[in-house]
Amino acid sequence: MNALVLPRPYLLFLADVTDLSYAKTAAGLRDWVPDQCIAEWALPGNPLRLGLPVMAPREAVKAGARALVIGAATMGGAIRPAWVSSLIEAMEAGLDIISGMHVPLASVPELNEAATRLGRQLIEVRKPPAGLPVATGRKRTGKRLLTVGTDCALGKKYTALGLARAFRRAGIDATFRATGQTGILIAGGGIPMDAVVSDFLAGAAEILSPDASEDHWDVIEGQGSLLHPSYAGVSLGLLHGSQPDVLVICHEHGRKRIIGLEAHYPIPSLEEVMELNLMHARRVNPAARIGGISLNTSALSEDEARRVIEAESRRTGLPCADPVRGGAAFAELVEACLETEAALAQ
Amino acid sequence: MNALVLPRPYLLFLADVTDLSYAKTAAGLRDWVPDQCIAEWALPGNPLRLGLPVMAPREAVKAGARALVIGAATMGGAIRPAWVSSLIEAMEAGLDIISGMHVPLASVPELNEAATRLGRQLIEVRKPPAGLPVATGRKRTGKRLLTVGTDCALGKKYTALGLARAFRRAGIDATFRATGQTGILIAGGGIPMDAVVSDFLAGAAEILSPDASEDHWDVIEGQGSLLHPSYAGVSLGLLHGSQPDVLVICHEHGRKRIIGLEAHYPIPSLEEVMELNLMHARRVNPAARIGGISLNTSALSEDEARRVIEAESRRTGLPCADPVRGGAAFAELVEACLETEAALAQ
Repeated sequence: MNALVLPRPYLLFLADVTDLSYAKTAAGLRDWVPDQCIAEWALPGNPLRLGLPVMAPREAVKAGARALVIGAATMGGAIRPAWVSSLIEAMEAGLDIISGMHVPLASVPELNEAATRLGRQLIEVRKPPAGLPVATGRKRTGKRLLTVGTDCALGKKYTALGLARAFRRAGIDATFRATGQTGILIAGGGIPMDAVVSDFLAGAAEILSPDASEDHWDVIEGQGSLLHPSYAGVSLGLLHGSQPDVLVICHEHGRKRIIGLEAHYPIPSLEEVMELNLMHARRVNPAARIGGISLNTSALSEDEARRVIEAESRRTGLPCADPVRGGAAFAELVEACLETEAALAQ
Repeated sequence: MNALVLPRPYLLFLADVTDLSYAKTAAGLRDWVPDQCIAEWALPGNPLRLGLPVMAPREAVKAGARALVIGAATMGGAIRPAWVSSLIEAMEAGLDIISGMHVPLASVPELNEAATRLGRQLIEVRKPPAGLPVATGRKRTGKRLLTVGTDCALGKKYTALGLARAFRRAGIDATFRATGQTGILIAGGGIPMDAVVSDFLAGAAEILSPDASEDHWDVIEGQGSLLHPSYAGVSLGLLHGSQPDVLVICHEHGRKRIIGLEAHYPIPSLEEVMELNLMHARRVNPAARIGGISLNTSALSEDEARRVIEAESRRTGLPCADPVRGGAAFAELVEACLETEAALAQ
């Protein structure tokens, strides 16, 4: 029983999507794992470019690519008919196809037929592996950090990616563990937690982050929020199965209400989110601690952001940083996450 | 989008199971919904009896039965080959087949073929309905009570059944809402929460307990425990989607550790369970309150049980009762659940 492992490196397929906001997956891969992105490819006449070499599948395979990633999104998550011949061309060139679309690749008869004929994989990153176990609650070896949030879609993935990268740059053996589709494409594997049958939620999180050497860190991408009325169950299963030593609380400055709901739910306070997460985390790991706060300040100017981050750090007494901005504040957050653990070991 | 609704009344099938402990589902149905149990039926030579009329399918159909329920359990949850001809006989007589076994009925080719040929349903109570939505968090009308626990398998279902029955006897319009397979068979419908994809957990709980008149009570069967390292995600999704007005805390006297885990997890204190459940419940319903404690004292004598129940009630300052024993203590618990609401309405 293992988490999904993807064939890499990738050819990024932009299809007929001409707006970068519909190619976020591809852009995220370019930004976070450029060494895994051999080239980009679009349908004829599409002017969108990511700045990678442009290659057709046959050339990309020669350059080392092993899979084509659908890096474009459509309304409703469908595979457009205009893409099909290109996807078949990719399989004929020797590439597997990886998709995070809602509609499964195998539901398109031509793709299914070509994959069978050519012996290629159609890989759905939204589909959890089969045979996930019920969680055992057994304490695993190695260190773990989990990003948790006040809401969805405010930076839990970017925070985990940024921390894992910073840990590695500090000479620490660290692995980013992905729990959502974009994270899985970036990591080259993982488990889409929200697609797991609920009996196996914590078990999936245990599988995602297995025993490791005592100085290894898994930096785990959080999902949802313990205070989100739609997704809190996912967050709690992930929290329990992760057995985190360190929690980093993610928040977007200025967000006042849970997004995506008609009903009004105020964004809970950082204090409330910390208290609840700590109470639950200590059930599976009595040493669990808060490492600090990751504050998404993307709507602010550089000066405003610095002021807000400093104010939040003073107010809470915790390190606070925007990982996208980096800088001294982020270096302090990284140090605090690691120091927390060092202090405990004494 | 609705919860599963089962065809009733039932013919209870005991198959070749000769030990009552492997026929708990059938015994539970006899105890809780005798008016929905037309008859029992076993394989030839099986001496096990539940005390209902014994009828073969054709006779049971004449007496009004609409479905045969597999009331026997096997190691591994398989349908035994020796049962197949009896199940086909039941379909030929006009009955649908209802199963809570792990192995799906439709995976047995002869059953699948007979169901198709005869136009009968093979109904799996472990399978959630298709198309469940993400929770909206919208506050629904009507009153709700949820049983929550310190662990699995200690009386959350029996407590909810007992309270719903007591509410009805007190002239209150109350519906038991089932979230596990035995509960679903008893209720004639429901949603098996642990089989729901985790993205839709709270959404399933919203569907299970829809808008109702302001004086109607849904009494919802809890699952797992917020402090159970394997199943807490299920418990939290169910708690959020249920929006309970009243929580009843279920505990087994003398249980010291979470059962079914090799790792040692102590049973959390009632206070801890109450605090966490209240914190989460108030996120979706600020008026949520603890109604009291349901204490499973099945291992104690009548005198010991009374002493333990009284001591726990004094210690916590809350009504405490064993619903299976009933009596004055249970009447107080019922009153407290309803009074809590009356007090709030003032």
